[in-house]
Amino acid sequence: MNKLLTVNCKNMDVKYDIKVNSDFSELSDYLHNLAQNGKYNYAKICIVSDSNVANIYLNGVRDILKAQCHDVYSHIIDAGEASKNFNVLNKLYEELIINHFDRGDLLVALGGGVVGDLTGYCAATYLRGIDYIQVPTSLLSQVDSSIGGKTAIDFLKYKNMVGAFYMPKLVYININTLNTLDNAQFSAGMGEIIKHGLIADRSYYDFIDAQKHEIKSKASNRLIELVYGSCLIKSKVVEKDPKEKGIRAHLNFGHTVGHAIEKLSDYKLLHGQCVSIGIMAAMYISEKLGNISISDVEKAKEMLEYFDLPTTLSGLDIPAEAILDATKSDKKMRSGKIKFVVLKSVGEATVNNEINDSLLLEAINNIIS
Amino acid sequence: MNKLLTVNCKNMDVKYDIKVNSDFSELSDYLHNLAQNGKYNYAKICIVSDSNVANIYLNGVRDILKAQCHDVYSHIIDAGEASKNFNVLNKLYEELIINHFDRGDLLVALGGGVVGDLTGYCAATYLRGIDYIQVPTSLLSQVDSSIGGKTAIDFLKYKNMVGAFYMPKLVYININTLNTLDNAQFSAGMGEIIKHGLIADRSYYDFIDAQKHEIKSKASNRLIELVYGSCLIKSKVVEKDPKEKGIRAHLNFGHTVGHAIEKLSDYKLLHGQCVSIGIMAAMYISEKLGNISISDVEKAKEMLEYFDLPTTLSGLDIPAEAILDATKSDKKMRSGKIKFVVLKSVGEATVNNEINDSLLLEAINNIIS
Repeated sequence: MNKLLTVNCKNMDVKYDIKVNSDFSELSDYLHNLAQNGKYNYAKICIVSDSNVANIYLNGVRDILKAQCHDVYSHIIDAGEASKNFNVLNKLYEELIINHFDRGDLLVALGGGVVGDLTGYCAATYLRGIDYIQVPTSLLSQVDSSIGGKTAIDFLKYKNMVGAFYMPKLVYININTLNTLDNAQFSAGMGEIIKHGLIADRSYYDFIDAQKHEIKSKASNRLIELVYGSCLIKSKVVEKDPKEKGIRAHLNFGHTVGHAIEKLSDYKLLHGQCVSIGIMAAMYISEKLGNISISDVEKAKEMLEYFDLPTTLSGLDIPAEAILDATKSDKKMRSGKIKFVVLKSVGEATVNNEINDSLLLEAINNIIS
Repeated sequence: MNKLLTVNCKNMDVKYDIKVNSDFSELSDYLHNLAQNGKYNYAKICIVSDSNVANIYLNGVRDILKAQCHDVYSHIIDAGEASKNFNVLNKLYEELIINHFDRGDLLVALGGGVVGDLTGYCAATYLRGIDYIQVPTSLLSQVDSSIGGKTAIDFLKYKNMVGAFYMPKLVYININTLNTLDNAQFSAGMGEIIKHGLIADRSYYDFIDAQKHEIKSKASNRLIELVYGSCLIKSKVVEKDPKEKGIRAHLNFGHTVGHAIEKLSDYKLLHGQCVSIGIMAAMYISEKLGNISISDVEKAKEMLEYFDLPTTLSGLDIPAEAILDATKSDKKMRSGKIKFVVLKSVGEATVNNEINDSLLLEAINNIIS
């Protein structure tokens, strides 16, 4: 089984495929097709990967790419969020300069979100932009960060402060890389996946619930359906609003409080874990607004917990007021007003600018206990 | 007298005005109109300028902007190309972060090419992109770098190595800033202006020739016509090819050899001066190809020299072979082949991929003697 979808951002004149497969073999055909279309006859390729992923997958991917391109370089960064900074970026620029990469060459991001964000940002800015493709190997990057062209690095203590909207030429997903992913990382991806169901597609949400055992045991075909479904939801949002001026904000469901927790926990929790807790805060508010039922909130909590995600802050001693303050200083705040994403119903989201501090604090207290 | 034109990059869904005026007063109206259109109601503005320009124009521009926006900040960088680097950029990011700038705010680049390129690149990448307007104060930036959204910083010893294509919301030109520009900088701008005539518009080229005395004496209305004419040529090229995949390369006429000289002279010559010498090399080649006459070459030489531009390397001891090598390693080289821009006739350019080393060396020797 394999699945294919095409992202078509019409108002940006950008179009690219997302291929969901169970091995890397077709990567070569895709590169060949891009070249056949005449536009992308890459003279050189640089695979960017991290120390963990490269150990397992670099040689295989390099061999496949070499069938289409003689000069395949690789550049390995240390695994982890700490690599998403200017120093690591500058080393990558240097690698490209030394090897005379020009605008007609290609970068390949082989790894999770850090590799994808950094490589994409490098591609967006090296010589004012060269092509890149995403080969995401973590669940989170497969369903979220690899799609939609959000690229970035961190700056000072601020996540994704410096970046660009810059679309890849292809997203190629091999779901079998999930077999070498640790459980916490797999769970973190499930947080975003459940979020996709909640904000955009009730039937997809029900599919996750119905298939949760097979998903957790990583049955190959269920994973392909799962990842494909999430890519479809995310890409439809991105097509409508590539530069996050409107509906793309719905993807931030659970993220406003989630980011605050992530920051205050000093990044001890994974992004997906913080989003899971943030989802519970947003579900609480959605219920208080009368949009969803208490049983909807309970069901989401059960699903998140089934996938080993935290739904409260237990164990972390962070005062509610600190979370409130950090939430309000999140960069998604527009001129002093929080754009808070809530559910209209299960499967549909909306932005609410009128959430007051007391309701927000109530929701935060609810996830603390 | 004032002039207005609109740049409309249809395939990028981008449109912005270029206003050529003899004072700053209408800047306020423009900002008001942008806000009235509903899309750009800026809560905060940061004017970026350099130490020279700020001394003369910052207060005036700030007062005008304050009529439309309460929170107007300023950020001053050291004047000169040396400021176009990551350290200076990072200080600007920090200024924006400290003052809580978000995606709905605005940067204003008040200065020459360095200020414009750096501010534009900061705008392209801060929070993945915020709005900016160009208020160019040097002749070179008015007719060249402020138009077309090429933003960049230098990296290591490489010019414009890291950057983005990112269009401003407005280019506002006050030609009276040219009265405080030193003569060498004015001449440097004339190099690009003469180039515009040569590559795209014979009648504009003839206008420059006919009006050269008034232009040199900076008669206000002649300068407005001159700058407007150059902006029109550049913007038409940019509209057709915003990301330099084809015809925009014509703007590199004189630049391939020019960049090589700029580098080898260790940036002792101004960019526009190097381009002037580069133009003569490209004219030589165009004549040898039989596209233009010897008298065309002579006339261009006279015009450049009338505006105090160098047309040979006299005084600089750089071997021809070094210039040849540097020309061939210029980043505009595609997979080993030089894309050399030549004239088809006076007023029309074309790209020639077949210029061999011996003709190139002949042209270089011609500008050395």
